[in-house]
Amino acid sequence: MGKTTVGFIGLGLMGGSLSIALKKLPREYYFLGLDHNQTHCEEALKLGLVDEIVNSLEALENCDLIILSIPVDGIIAVLQKLQNISPQCTVIDLGSTKEKISLSIPSNIRKNVVTAHPMTGTEKFGPKAALPDLYRDKVVVLCDLEKSGKAQKDVAKTLFSDIGMNIVCMDAKEHDRHAAFISHMPHALSYALANSVMKQEARESIVALAGGGFKDMSRIAKSSPTMWEDIFRQNKDNVLEAMHAFQSELKKCQKMVENDEWEALNTWMKDANTLHDIL
Amino acid sequence: MGKTTVGFIGLGLMGGSLSIALKKLPREYYFLGLDHNQTHCEEALKLGLVDEIVNSLEALENCDLIILSIPVDGIIAVLQKLQNISPQCTVIDLGSTKEKISLSIPSNIRKNVVTAHPMTGTEKFGPKAALPDLYRDKVVVLCDLEKSGKAQKDVAKTLFSDIGMNIVCMDAKEHDRHAAFISHMPHALSYALANSVMKQEARESIVALAGGGFKDMSRIAKSSPTMWEDIFRQNKDNVLEAMHAFQSELKKCQKMVENDEWEALNTWMKDANTLHDIL
Repeated sequence: MGKTTVGFIGLGLMGGSLSIALKKLPREYYFLGLDHNQTHCEEALKLGLVDEIVNSLEALENCDLIILSIPVDGIIAVLQKLQNISPQCTVIDLGSTKEKISLSIPSNIRKNVVTAHPMTGTEKFGPKAALPDLYRDKVVVLCDLEKSGKAQKDVAKTLFSDIGMNIVCMDAKEHDRHAAFISHMPHALSYALANSVMKQEARESIVALAGGGFKDMSRIAKSSPTMWEDIFRQNKDNVLEAMHAFQSELKKCQKMVENDEWEALNTWMKDANTLHDIL
Repeated sequence: MGKTTVGFIGLGLMGGSLSIALKKLPREYYFLGLDHNQTHCEEALKLGLVDEIVNSLEALENCDLIILSIPVDGIIAVLQKLQNISPQCTVIDLGSTKEKISLSIPSNIRKNVVTAHPMTGTEKFGPKAALPDLYRDKVVVLCDLEKSGKAQKDVAKTLFSDIGMNIVCMDAKEHDRHAAFISHMPHALSYALANSVMKQEARESIVALAGGGFKDMSRIAKSSPTMWEDIFRQNKDNVLEAMHAFQSELKKCQKMVENDEWEALNTWMKDANTLHDIL
């Protein structure tokens, strides 16, 4: 059996970390990389994340596996152009929203594609941000899996489980609503927190007073605006719904503080404490 | 030189962790503990956080040092009753809001008291939550220090620096406003996030999809309602102001998403990214 050839489209945190994780497996791989950011291409090559840089999608058409680790609108655009892949090829996209991607896949390559969302990441981006254990012990959500071919399902499941991920299957529509509440809206909060604090507070006070709580709450405000602009656009309706739900809870809190309803506030915080039982 | 006797009023996370940190110093200490929670008293004794449990404030009046590690309203109440301490005694309170405490200190013991806010903590509480390195490399804010006696200032500064803390001095009023933005309001967000997600989502989905972002954003929603009810009450006006500032940023984000103003949203997120340069 020869080397498995993998084409990485997008050489940032997600693609780069996947390369490192796959390299640790006993299987032999050859990695081709494509990224419109020339600096990222050079860095990825230098860091050994890819064996070769290519300059066109055509150069990846003979790969056994193609990984789409770029923003969602990029994934949708690329999928329209992957018309000449071999019938055995597995294409896995790692986009953060799934419904629009799933619906956009051309029918002639639908069986080739497995649409996945690894529930992991950091606030850093680019090839230098790649981490060996980014995927280990994390969850990956595979969406609309019944539309993928049997061989491709097997390839994807084996790959994710080989790198130590726990697989959860879900309808793409349902995924997007859950993700809006659990990932996308919290990112909006973190960005809003960072901006409100930076407007009000002097840098010295932030540095002097920032404890673990603020650091945690503001960490994801350092995330890539390009990536998150795309996610908010793709998942607009769900994100807005999640924001409304959050705002209504915060308003409740605000009213209780305003009106000195301390017992009710205590109960409301106790309700939040039950998160203990889950996470 | 004999043992330094320390009276801990409040045997939870903060008091317990301070006991562990002090025990590691070369100085010899004898720790007395007072807590209205009988279980906490027994646990603290069993964990070796205190050498002896006492049942009244009077039993602590001869201590060299008294640590008030209880909620703010408790601190204010206790300060009114500490009338018979020796002139050399140092009383340090660790309350999370400072102005009301500072103003409440009876004038005859004003020089004895150093009012401090260690910018550290975890979402856990009680003696079992105590950690050896909770204070190490963290900031402690000392407020209205000009009102404390020279000997007491020295004792407090030496103590906090001995356990590895960085000392910042600040006016109590100014501290409370900063703390509202950097610590108190973010706690309200985390509680509101936890409650909004738990109302909308099935528990299984939360467990399945929670990545590092959600875990970070919701961690402090597990904090003690008793402690936080008290903080929101004591710092009500500043907290409400900070909530308004946050809501106005979040509303801005919401409007940009609603109106498809993606470029503006990107810029707004880039503004938030500048937090990188500070933290």
